[in-house]
Amino acid sequence: MKDSILSIIVNQHLHPKGYLVSVGGAEDKGTDLEKGIIERNRLSFFELGILKNIVSLIKQGEAPKVEVVTTASSIPDEVATNYTEAFSKLGCADIGHLRIRNREDASSPEYLERLRQCNCVMLSGGNQLRLSSILGGTEFLDVLKERYMTEHFVIAGTSAGAMAMSNTMIYEGSAANAHLKGEVKITTGLGLMQNVIIDSHFDKRGRFNRLAQAVAAYPGAIGIGLGEDTGIVVTEGVHLTAIGSGSVVIIDGKNIEYNNIADIEFGKPISVENIIVHMMSQGDIYNVQTRKFEGSELVIKTED
Amino acid sequence: MKDSILSIIVNQHLHPKGYLVSVGGAEDKGTDLEKGIIERNRLSFFELGILKNIVSLIKQGEAPKVEVVTTASSIPDEVATNYTEAFSKLGCADIGHLRIRNREDASSPEYLERLRQCNCVMLSGGNQLRLSSILGGTEFLDVLKERYMTEHFVIAGTSAGAMAMSNTMIYEGSAANAHLKGEVKITTGLGLMQNVIIDSHFDKRGRFNRLAQAVAAYPGAIGIGLGEDTGIVVTEGVHLTAIGSGSVVIIDGKNIEYNNIADIEFGKPISVENIIVHMMSQGDIYNVQTRKFEGSELVIKTED
Repeated sequence: MKDSILSIIVNQHLHPKGYLVSVGGAEDKGTDLEKGIIERNRLSFFELGILKNIVSLIKQGEAPKVEVVTTASSIPDEVATNYTEAFSKLGCADIGHLRIRNREDASSPEYLERLRQCNCVMLSGGNQLRLSSILGGTEFLDVLKERYMTEHFVIAGTSAGAMAMSNTMIYEGSAANAHLKGEVKITTGLGLMQNVIIDSHFDKRGRFNRLAQAVAAYPGAIGIGLGEDTGIVVTEGVHLTAIGSGSVVIIDGKNIEYNNIADIEFGKPISVENIIVHMMSQGDIYNVQTRKFEGSELVIKTED
Repeated sequence: MKDSILSIIVNQHLHPKGYLVSVGGAEDKGTDLEKGIIERNRLSFFELGILKNIVSLIKQGEAPKVEVVTTASSIPDEVATNYTEAFSKLGCADIGHLRIRNREDASSPEYLERLRQCNCVMLSGGNQLRLSSILGGTEFLDVLKERYMTEHFVIAGTSAGAMAMSNTMIYEGSAANAHLKGEVKITTGLGLMQNVIIDSHFDKRGRFNRLAQAVAAYPGAIGIGLGEDTGIVVTEGVHLTAIGSGSVVIIDGKNIEYNNIADIEFGKPISVENIIVHMMSQGDIYNVQTRKFEGSELVIKTED
């Protein structure tokens, strides 16, 4: 039954009642286990300004009840502790850790119940393929989507947790080779948003070509490049408000003219004519459905 | 007299008879003096495919007579030796080193005479501000421009040597802060091309925001982002043909709508709506005057 309700909701593009917050921030990839990297992540995981935005979206009058999903991370306990501390600093007392390491965990009745009881879910960074492969097709994801579609419910994600929100999900592609056909690896994400492709760490890691290739391959989707300490709040599934100190780059392929991606061999550089790009900063609002700016207003503040 | 002729030539936008080759490749900044970095540069300075393109542009029937200008570099002798070796591999026997370290060197009658006798000048990498501040306003630059405008003459430049070719020249701007107003520092370059802004190392160093900010501040110019082992051949001053293994990103600001760069404080993130971007690969031709693709043809090959 859930499936059919969900497919009706998703396919009819009804506006979700919940909020998404996608953040381009730091991550741990499991391979970066040197102390320095983890230390750095500890600090940058929790841009308190961004976290404050997330907390402020929780329904007025309700005490924040946050569940941290560390599925993407290879150091889930450390990550959960860090989030708990950071949310505590903002006065949130009720922070849980949904320690989902595999598909069996995802069906745990306890976790499902806790998912039903909270009003905010935080998807940590790490490896986005873990999120899609472990949560994809589970009841956990169904409940998450249903709550997002039908209730005032907040889903936040940083780095891998942000990238996994879209239907079309990038999971690999180095800056140096991202102009070569086939070097940007794509699969299907959690599908909380349709027709977008989210990329993270956009500025520092030089990911313009990577996101441009993903959009060139599927111009039906809007590319969203999130810088670090930067994110978007998604309302009604279509309005993107930039938050944080950095830049959100929007890549729109609707006017693409010449595009050789279908015709060239794998490993050859792509040519793409007429990509539209916007640079958004805090407060700017972009509509992914109309593909237009909707002005700029500082309703959502990230500064203290 | 030179001055008035030049200003007529430049201001009337007569088509230059010479060729420019701007390459995004490796550089030395003087601060990266560790052995590893220099070793790396030794290898990557000389993408032989790109160098072959440069040599192939020299007038048929003339023996190549190349002068290497190492003004930008902090290790001029090493750089000159490297270029000499690399050009030698391509069968060029007559390679000179114009070791111009200051404005006095630039007025050396010997160097001026050698500039008049060669058929190709190679501007090395390094710091583009050295090129503009040492060569700007000198007779050396006048002769260089006059030869470029009136003869079959080749001017190649890599990294700083490429960036200095444009009239509007970026000389500073870190990837992490390039979305903040004022963080992308601009001055006037050698002015071999008008109305373009050239950036180098475009992919690896994440310079999209930097070039976009430069274009947002002056949409009259076309931004040209050159990847490593990648460049453009400029013919008649307006036709850009991509060469090399990487990607050339063109940023066109002519359709920019919302743009807050004039209104916000320094250090605040910029918002820019509707930038047009093209990704070019080897053989693609773009016209900076009409701001349109002119098709793709592999007349210029970089492969062996």
